[in-house]
Amino acid sequence: MDSAELLDILGNENRRRILRLLSRKPCYVTEISEYLGVSPKAVIDHLRRLEDAGLVESRTDDQRRKYFSISRNLRLEVSVSPYEFGMKSAYPASANLDVSRCRYVSLDLQFGPESAESRGVNEGDDEGAKVDDSGSADDTDETNGAAVAAATDLADELDELQQLQRELSLAQRWVHGRIADVQARLSDALDADSEDRLHAEVLAAVAGGAATPTEVSRTVEAPKPVVEECLSELADRGFLERDGETEEWALAG
Amino acid sequence: MDSAELLDILGNENRRRILRLLSRKPCYVTEISEYLGVSPKAVIDHLRRLEDAGLVESRTDDQRRKYFSISRNLRLEVSVSPYEFGMKSAYPASANLDVSRCRYVSLDLQFGPESAESRGVNEGDDEGAKVDDSGSADDTDETNGAAVAAATDLADELDELQQLQRELSLAQRWVHGRIADVQARLSDALDADSEDRLHAEVLAAVAGGAATPTEVSRTVEAPKPVVEECLSELADRGFLERDGETEEWALAG
Repeated sequence: MDSAELLDILGNENRRRILRLLSRKPCYVTEISEYLGVSPKAVIDHLRRLEDAGLVESRTDDQRRKYFSISRNLRLEVSVSPYEFGMKSAYPASANLDVSRCRYVSLDLQFGPESAESRGVNEGDDEGAKVDDSGSADDTDETNGAAVAAATDLADELDELQQLQRELSLAQRWVHGRIADVQARLSDALDADSEDRLHAEVLAAVAGGAATPTEVSRTVEAPKPVVEECLSELADRGFLERDGETEEWALAG
Repeated sequence: MDSAELLDILGNENRRRILRLLSRKPCYVTEISEYLGVSPKAVIDHLRRLEDAGLVESRTDDQRRKYFSISRNLRLEVSVSPYEFGMKSAYPASANLDVSRCRYVSLDLQFGPESAESRGVNEGDDEGAKVDDSGSADDTDETNGAAVAAATDLADELDELQQLQRELSLAQRWVHGRIADVQARLSDALDADSEDRLHAEVLAAVAGGAATPTEVSRTVEAPKPVVEECLSELADRGFLERDGETEEWALAG
């Protein structure tokens, strides 16, 4: 799903309330309608839109009542600054993702991705399965003890992940502020008279390794002829150089 | 501004297109209207809503034309999973923020917050100001050389920050997936029969240090009586313990 579609869906208070409710527990239409104080018909319309977008799914229980629940993991990020309006929606990265490959970020977690598989609920379940029907009260206690230990471990892990999430969010707010600051200074440095920020974006794209007009055009999301004009102007003013042979652009100096 | 208000505003395609345009350069109404193919009246309505929310501001130029630009730095994050629907909007964290205080995240940046102040555009500007009116062509070249160096430094810094931003975003997607996974396992471990996830949230809140029903209620955003019932049930089942003296809750064991 693209970010625009997601924002259209989330730009409605009742749909947000439905999602919040479903994140607590799966519900059927009457429950949602009563909780929201909105007609069942309106709830059905919202649910249909959420289902069409793949955010919500339904299943039917033994009494043939249709339950709705959230079917998808996703994140949406929107950044607004005088120099940027960016939206990004993304599915979770794989649990096996090697975060240690990151160049600028490192995460220090007690519960690493390797350890996650070898611990937790499944272990507890297995131990539970081993207890035979004739099990004494002691066996039951042990099983319960294992289940409690597994659950409290998971609760600790969840707490750690949530703290990490808050720290990442703080780090991102910090980076966001820094980027807006550098963009303002770069815009001043390049183009004190004009308010057009494209020059700054093009320069940053070249600094980031975009070497051809096509690559720069893709990075800054501007048409190629506009980018080509901008590259020439930056070269005339001494900010950029073009390799005579490969015709690739690079920062001057 | 709260996240709900921001989502209401961003849930309209034309307002998003206006913000994207203004992030490239400040514009007046006619420009926006032509670019969007929308009547000036509709543009004015959207701009008023964006101004009321404090996202956009206007100023009047020498020809008495009113220009609009984005006035605010902010970030919005939305997380959706079967166990969570969270929205958070935030202003940038201060550039002086000590990111090194984070417990789980570390950032490795060439351009640290200290170095940012001592480099860059202002330096270049100062050097430019030192050149007097009688400056020779050499002086001008030097000034331009300094400006180019300052700008390319800034472009490098911007590129580094943007890479860091992408890495943080990837790390957050990874954490998001991990959290949903742990929540699912914790929910299974606690409450295989019921679909209500409140027990898992309450247990994680206690693991995170919430010790009183009031604190837990604030953390999980559920009414205090519901939380109290949930705490007692978790204690009956052996997951939680309550200190006899302080009446504070903690994980069992």
